[in-house]
Amino acid sequence: MALGWARAGQEVIIGSRALERAVQAALAINREVGRTAATGMLNREAAAAGEIVVLTVPYDAHEKTLLDIREAVRGKILVDVTVPIDPQNPRRLRIPSDGSATEEAQALLGPETRVVAAFQNISYTHLSQGEAIACDVLTCGGDAQARQEVIRLAGLLGLRGLDAGPARNARVVEGLTVVLMEINRRYKVRGAGIRVTGLPDRDNEK
Amino acid sequence: MALGWARAGQEVIIGSRALERAVQAALAINREVGRTAATGMLNREAAAAGEIVVLTVPYDAHEKTLLDIREAVRGKILVDVTVPIDPQNPRRLRIPSDGSATEEAQALLGPETRVVAAFQNISYTHLSQGEAIACDVLTCGGDAQARQEVIRLAGLLGLRGLDAGPARNARVVEGLTVVLMEINRRYKVRGAGIRVTGLPDRDNEK
Repeated sequence: MALGWARAGQEVIIGSRALERAVQAALAINREVGRTAATGMLNREAAAAGEIVVLTVPYDAHEKTLLDIREAVRGKILVDVTVPIDPQNPRRLRIPSDGSATEEAQALLGPETRVVAAFQNISYTHLSQGEAIACDVLTCGGDAQARQEVIRLAGLLGLRGLDAGPARNARVVEGLTVVLMEINRRYKVRGAGIRVTGLPDRDNEK
Repeated sequence: MALGWARAGQEVIIGSRALERAVQAALAINREVGRTAATGMLNREAAAAGEIVVLTVPYDAHEKTLLDIREAVRGKILVDVTVPIDPQNPRRLRIPSDGSATEEAQALLGPETRVVAAFQNISYTHLSQGEAIACDVLTCGGDAQARQEVIRLAGLLGLRGLDAGPARNARVVEGLTVVLMEINRRYKVRGAGIRVTGLPDRDNEK
């Protein structure tokens, strides 16, 4: 996603727990786009420097990372891409007591930070190979304007973002990732996605 | 769905708590298809007479209806179309303690009946108007062969059924209905649906 945004002319900051890894990832993006679009920082500094913060960590690291960046993201939009997969069984969800990783993040960060669930359903395979991605981005969260911002970010990646309403709907959107992984496995494909049909701006959906 | 299956040459039995309503619904189908394809019966008799039983009731009537037909469906496939919507707020799920209406039905009916979740995401508007439906049918349940039977039933309606794995995934598929209703409301459409992309047999999905 960082590469996609860099290609779309955005300035991107990569965060990591290890500065060296963040810097290497940023350099790889800069080589790819042929300009200094990306910078590498430690997670907390990246969160402090960014305007919109995108969290893409395994569920195991979700709470710890959020606690680390909590003050740094105050007042910003945090895009949570986390799917609460059961570490004992990656085909299952470990459903958080708050209902979803997104609601958990919102509870941890407090009301001044606007959490938006998005991008969980996009296949890593497609993203990393720069392939065309036939998958909509469902955005959920407590703030309508923040959802629109994330829809705009999806658009910069060539993806259609859709407003899927309040944070409680994130449990469905997060869970959909596990269903798509199940479909990948059963149909021997690597990048099943979803498209919402029946919307006026798409006529090739039949 | 009954009309669609009647059109596809199947024999259909309509069940209701009121015999008169079942008979009227069956007659309407027979007029439409020009042959005696449908019969009306009380729920329990319909469940006893049918080979595959499809349950489409509001969540409020879910448990009561299942208890009524429990013996009649033993050994059969029960297709559960129920979405556990909160009667106090139809934009929310009331998540059952078993995780989904489907898992609840399976627990109520016991292991001899094979419950398959399906058809929850199909817009009633589209179905009732006989419109072409751009929506896949995700099937979930504990028995793989039963899921394949339901995929075949979806095919008779001109819909693509997909195997979405075990019953626990039904919470996502049921919840998706609420997300689609949210999208209907926000985008002022009446029949948002979903298509799974990235599968080999569809090339017009981009």
